[in-house]
Amino acid sequence: MPPQPPSAPTPPSLPAPLFDTAVIAGVGLIGGSVALGLRSRLLARRIVGVDASLDALREAQALGVVDEIRAAPGEWLREADLVVLAAPMRVLAPLAADLAPYLNPQALVTDVGSVKATIAAELHRLGVRNFVPGHPMAGSERGGVAHARAALLENAVWVLTPTEHTPLTALSRARALVEHLGAAPVVMPPGAHDDLVATVSHLPYLASLALTHLVARDERLSLLAAGGFRDLTRVASGDPRMSRDMVVENREALRLALRRFRTQLDRLEAELDDPEELLAAAQEGKRTRDSLPVVKRSLLPRRHDLVVTISDRPNQIGAVTQALGAAGVNIKDIEVLAIREDGGAMRLGLETPEDVQEAAGILRGAGFDVVGRA
Amino acid sequence: MPPQPPSAPTPPSLPAPLFDTAVIAGVGLIGGSVALGLRSRLLARRIVGVDASLDALREAQALGVVDEIRAAPGEWLREADLVVLAAPMRVLAPLAADLAPYLNPQALVTDVGSVKATIAAELHRLGVRNFVPGHPMAGSERGGVAHARAALLENAVWVLTPTEHTPLTALSRARALVEHLGAAPVVMPPGAHDDLVATVSHLPYLASLALTHLVARDERLSLLAAGGFRDLTRVASGDPRMSRDMVVENREALRLALRRFRTQLDRLEAELDDPEELLAAAQEGKRTRDSLPVVKRSLLPRRHDLVVTISDRPNQIGAVTQALGAAGVNIKDIEVLAIREDGGAMRLGLETPEDVQEAAGILRGAGFDVVGRA
Repeated sequence: MPPQPPSAPTPPSLPAPLFDTAVIAGVGLIGGSVALGLRSRLLARRIVGVDASLDALREAQALGVVDEIRAAPGEWLREADLVVLAAPMRVLAPLAADLAPYLNPQALVTDVGSVKATIAAELHRLGVRNFVPGHPMAGSERGGVAHARAALLENAVWVLTPTEHTPLTALSRARALVEHLGAAPVVMPPGAHDDLVATVSHLPYLASLALTHLVARDERLSLLAAGGFRDLTRVASGDPRMSRDMVVENREALRLALRRFRTQLDRLEAELDDPEELLAAAQEGKRTRDSLPVVKRSLLPRRHDLVVTISDRPNQIGAVTQALGAAGVNIKDIEVLAIREDGGAMRLGLETPEDVQEAAGILRGAGFDVVGRA
Repeated sequence: MPPQPPSAPTPPSLPAPLFDTAVIAGVGLIGGSVALGLRSRLLARRIVGVDASLDALREAQALGVVDEIRAAPGEWLREADLVVLAAPMRVLAPLAADLAPYLNPQALVTDVGSVKATIAAELHRLGVRNFVPGHPMAGSERGGVAHARAALLENAVWVLTPTEHTPLTALSRARALVEHLGAAPVVMPPGAHDDLVATVSHLPYLASLALTHLVARDERLSLLAAGGFRDLTRVASGDPRMSRDMVVENREALRLALRRFRTQLDRLEAELDDPEELLAAAQEGKRTRDSLPVVKRSLLPRRHDLVVTISDRPNQIGAVTQALGAAGVNIKDIEVLAIREDGGAMRLGLETPEDVQEAAGILRGAGFDVVGRA
């Protein structure tokens, strides 16, 4: 069942939406997730999807991701005060060129591409004044609007890369948008972003691809390819065309990252003859890895979630599920998020926003702390 | 609570154990898991642990992993008809040399080291006749006997690497052992094993370490190190000394794997200027990755688990938890293993083997399909 627009009248205490008309140009996984975030957090009064694919548009509308759909840019765009370019990277620049003539000069324009310097230069060339290049660092092995969900962007790092031409007011509006969507904005210049993602994203992809190619050349290897190898090659399982576009677009920064990577590999290979030094390298690697920030997100869509804090009293899981079962609320999914000596938390996946509201009420009545996400 | 030895008398229909006295030399994660597997599957009448660390021995005995403990080799070893060398790799050869004088010539001897050619040669030199080198491809980020569990080895690929000196009867006994522990034996020569694990295990570790070192040299990177980077560097989070020993021991094969890896990386880098060829490479990489066999195992200890098949009727999760809650069974952990249109499966983590038995009875009575693991 698609998410429903909130049916209750907006209570008078709520602030006005950040935006009146938001346009999502490209209704795929990320564009759709932005739309769902805008909707569930009441950030836009009206959400319009525009896409070259009529099928994608119809699916987005059927799923309740957007309010209206448009097959092509036009005068209607002047009503937009937020435009999110969320098409695949290879068509971002032509898409921006198509939209530019119709954009309201006051509209905040942003994109979600994974390489930033080229698109930043392109939008400047097109004269789009309030453009703030952006890169939400979120994704899923499963693409398309059907897998879009507001939660995909929650807690994600969302890089904003203003140039020297970006008005500070636009940057501040973009930052508010990102924060209201539940993501964590990080601001840096486009070139710095591209260098960093070359190392943390594009180089790992290429290394992962090189590893899978070793297996492709000797099928005996797949027999022994256990957990560690699967972990290392997971990124090679993403959409080949999107991955290819990403690394080609950022090839200059990627070549530098490759050079640094080879230097590290060579050093480690030399240390195979110097076990003490290699042990120090292994210890330093573990320290670094263990200190990486954790952003825990499931790859499964989570439309109608309820997070319940559970205490250390016996059988709290049973108490929660019994209370909901007795009330006829259907639990579709359940996950223990954390278990500690003094309690923990679990996530319940429910069917509808109404179920989330009902379940939250029941559990609060039974003394549980609950955070809902319809 | 430690796993309890089966308290009910063995029913007369059960076959005699495969082994009378099994000796686990090195009671850590893997040795302990072998011991628990031998115990839970009734494969040995008596399990003796020997270890240089008295603390490890005491912990193993307190946890019920072994029946008896010994601080040093001696005449008592002659009673063993199975000896599993499960010490860290760097001490395997000296350990074997200490044990060799006391071994019964009929005893099956095997090891669990991750590099095979050297230890195979060493045991031949020591004159241990019934030695079958082995490598269970299983592990956990958490070491030590406290994390040992029989399930760690279930469904794991367990490579056996007989040499030209290995008696076929010994190989066949080793294979039976592996199969009875629930693992999947794969037989190949030691050198072939070492070449293959250099590529699927030791090279990925080194690549992962090189990636973490890039982050260690520029802390801005950790800000953007999202899911993909975490996946690729997970293996760098293992025990540094064990990882170091493993790659140093296998450095010759690893150097060859590194050479092949660099060739693939160079080719991919060149293809950054040939996007069509790079797309083909990305597609081939995805095909290969997606066809890797899946061995799904959690890294968390699962001592007292129950897997329940659930149908597509409404609120089956609630029905399961209500039935157990009503009977006072405390569910400590719950995980949905699979959800499909036509149903799914979930895992319940319980406190004691008795809880598993009780819960299985209740759920079977309520019409659920249940697989228990106490």
